[in-house]
Amino acid sequence: MDIFESVREICEKAKKASVNVRCADGSVRDKFLSEFAFLLLHKKDELISANAKDVEEAEKSGLSRAMLDRLTLTEARLEALSEGVKKLCTLSDPLGGGEVFKRPNGMEIKKIKVPLGVVGVIFEARPNVCADIAALCIKSGNCAVLRGGKECINTNLAIEALAKNALGSAGLPEDSVQVIPFTQREGANALMQMRGYVDVLIPRGGKGLIKSVTESSKVPVIETGAGNCHIYVHSDADTDKALSIIENAKVSRPSVCNAIETVLVSRDIADDFLPRLKDVFDRSFVEIRGCEKTRAIIDCAQAGNEDWETEYNDLICAVGVVDSEEAAIAHINRYSTAHSEAIITESRSAAEMFTSLVDSACVYVNASTRFTDGGEFGFGAEVGISTQKLHARGPMGLSALTTDKYVISGNGQIR
Amino acid sequence: MDIFESVREICEKAKKASVNVRCADGSVRDKFLSEFAFLLLHKKDELISANAKDVEEAEKSGLSRAMLDRLTLTEARLEALSEGVKKLCTLSDPLGGGEVFKRPNGMEIKKIKVPLGVVGVIFEARPNVCADIAALCIKSGNCAVLRGGKECINTNLAIEALAKNALGSAGLPEDSVQVIPFTQREGANALMQMRGYVDVLIPRGGKGLIKSVTESSKVPVIETGAGNCHIYVHSDADTDKALSIIENAKVSRPSVCNAIETVLVSRDIADDFLPRLKDVFDRSFVEIRGCEKTRAIIDCAQAGNEDWETEYNDLICAVGVVDSEEAAIAHINRYSTAHSEAIITESRSAAEMFTSLVDSACVYVNASTRFTDGGEFGFGAEVGISTQKLHARGPMGLSALTTDKYVISGNGQIR
Repeated sequence: MDIFESVREICEKAKKASVNVRCADGSVRDKFLSEFAFLLLHKKDELISANAKDVEEAEKSGLSRAMLDRLTLTEARLEALSEGVKKLCTLSDPLGGGEVFKRPNGMEIKKIKVPLGVVGVIFEARPNVCADIAALCIKSGNCAVLRGGKECINTNLAIEALAKNALGSAGLPEDSVQVIPFTQREGANALMQMRGYVDVLIPRGGKGLIKSVTESSKVPVIETGAGNCHIYVHSDADTDKALSIIENAKVSRPSVCNAIETVLVSRDIADDFLPRLKDVFDRSFVEIRGCEKTRAIIDCAQAGNEDWETEYNDLICAVGVVDSEEAAIAHINRYSTAHSEAIITESRSAAEMFTSLVDSACVYVNASTRFTDGGEFGFGAEVGISTQKLHARGPMGLSALTTDKYVISGNGQIR
Repeated sequence: MDIFESVREICEKAKKASVNVRCADGSVRDKFLSEFAFLLLHKKDELISANAKDVEEAEKSGLSRAMLDRLTLTEARLEALSEGVKKLCTLSDPLGGGEVFKRPNGMEIKKIKVPLGVVGVIFEARPNVCADIAALCIKSGNCAVLRGGKECINTNLAIEALAKNALGSAGLPEDSVQVIPFTQREGANALMQMRGYVDVLIPRGGKGLIKSVTESSKVPVIETGAGNCHIYVHSDADTDKALSIIENAKVSRPSVCNAIETVLVSRDIADDFLPRLKDVFDRSFVEIRGCEKTRAIIDCAQAGNEDWETEYNDLICAVGVVDSEEAAIAHINRYSTAHSEAIITESRSAAEMFTSLVDSACVYVNASTRFTDGGEFGFGAEVGISTQKLHARGPMGLSALTTDKYVISGNGQIR
């Protein structure tokens, strides 16, 4: 049997299982979560030994140190993973509820939250995503079809086995969580064709992955995680605040999507501010790539057009001097991935102009972009950070995995 | 200049204009609506004479009578159109508002409703859609790029001229409403490639149009309007109610998406019920296409597999006898376009099983599917009826043309 047909069968089984998961009581879905959390902890030796095979292969094939680090499961990481899954039990059920409205003809319309059905996820060499998403999907009444990077296939299959074990204990169909066992590109390509079986596809990973999925998928996609984020230092900024926020947003965790990639500085304060910014960046080994006007004030590399477009995910920062707030906003709306941007200013009107004209999911005044995160927003769980406008925008809680259904009760009404 | 490049320029202008419309006060957007409503009425001669050209062409090219009827603008229709646009003024502004939550670190997070930006619509030979959508888009702070069927190009351009006139009076950019003047297929194809300029594409029309847009569009799509709707007559049905509801759902307006196409009858009552159903359908000249079991009871044509899949939009109805409620639900979930389905039953448990297991946007108990409509649901305005699960499902009010934005205010918070 070819890969396409095998993937189709996997998705068909998921669709069939989704009927049971959709109708399962919240307590049954939570039972799965506590079992799964338990197994992640108590079968940690199995997971770590499956993971060791992946790590060994990856080392041989010369995977980068950062990628190897993300791939590796340790006891501490499994504890955190298990803790995260267990915590989902404490969150309220995202299904059901809803408004009820009565129509003049006596019909009652109830708007309820129902699961999307089958959620497909394509991710890279991060086995924690596999366990995380499986748990988020079942909590929200969905089935999961998971296609991870080839580097973590053994780990993913071991996680799948535990999930199936936990599904069995909770009385849910084992097909509710499935890992696509094919590491060839065809596995991902087939998944993108499964319109009719798969209700939504979420790519979790870098820009290349997201681009290829949005361009090729026949299944509706939720784009997540591309973060070319900006901070604009306005002429009325408290520059101490500005420096501390910029340092935090660039340096505290440069590899993540809510870290900044570009700082724009008002020309009115550039002479004074840029040398101080350079001191801060030098201390943290951040390479500056500046525009012409920046380079007239501080010593740094030249920023080309591609720098304004790049999500470095590294200790590099593009720096530009802008003539006006309008110019800063135009730059951001042109180059941003519409994830998170901040203005540093003590001027209320400048802040209002920025927050109303910048067309991004999260727009900050005098705070670090690093707060764009489901946990930091108080959502309890995070499915990802959507950078699109449809369905979900910004940090996605469990409700992003649900849709609406109208149930209308009458006693013979006709129109 | 080629069509692709011209369409790109149109969309670029729309994107630029969208900044102004987004920031315009609700009263400014309502000013446009009252001006536009006024012009639709007071320039009706211009519209009707532009429309006459289209109708003449269409008659020559042999357009069907039903299509010709939809294409034709009359004084009465323009009055209704103008009335509809004016009514939008009375609806509350779908923008702004939203929840505010404070985080433990003192940051305030405000979740507000903002416009999507640029809404593209591809529609067929129905000029009222052109005026309707332009009004709905501006009311919700969006710009509209409209590509209608070639049969109504003169009418659409006349409507566009009035819209631009009204935009000018309200102080909004004229590029906020644009009709693509190219009637070749390339015009629509180009619009589907405008990711980055156009935020959402809504196909309004038949199954063929919707399929071609969902398969080819690089811009995110909201599918609307495909309605292969079902009524299931359960063994515990009040059969008088069942007949009256079926007659209403099939006959009152067979050409619309919320009309039914298939009736499924429980085998327990089929012997008694089907002859009565045949009487009702015969009286209204509805052709029955039945399954084997149906044909053993009443005289009718044979239903083939394609009948279960077909949205007739005509006085034809497929009829099937099913062995159980499970079989009815399985049939519906297999063949339905997930628009609207109804069960007729006096059994509470049968109703509950049906409403929880049928995976459609609107599920009815003892009422006609014809109520699936923004106006009937009390939404005040209708953008369309979404048959997809992401972003919007079922009748879409103005909020379907908005997205969320988080505005976060701090005083130097870092993570």
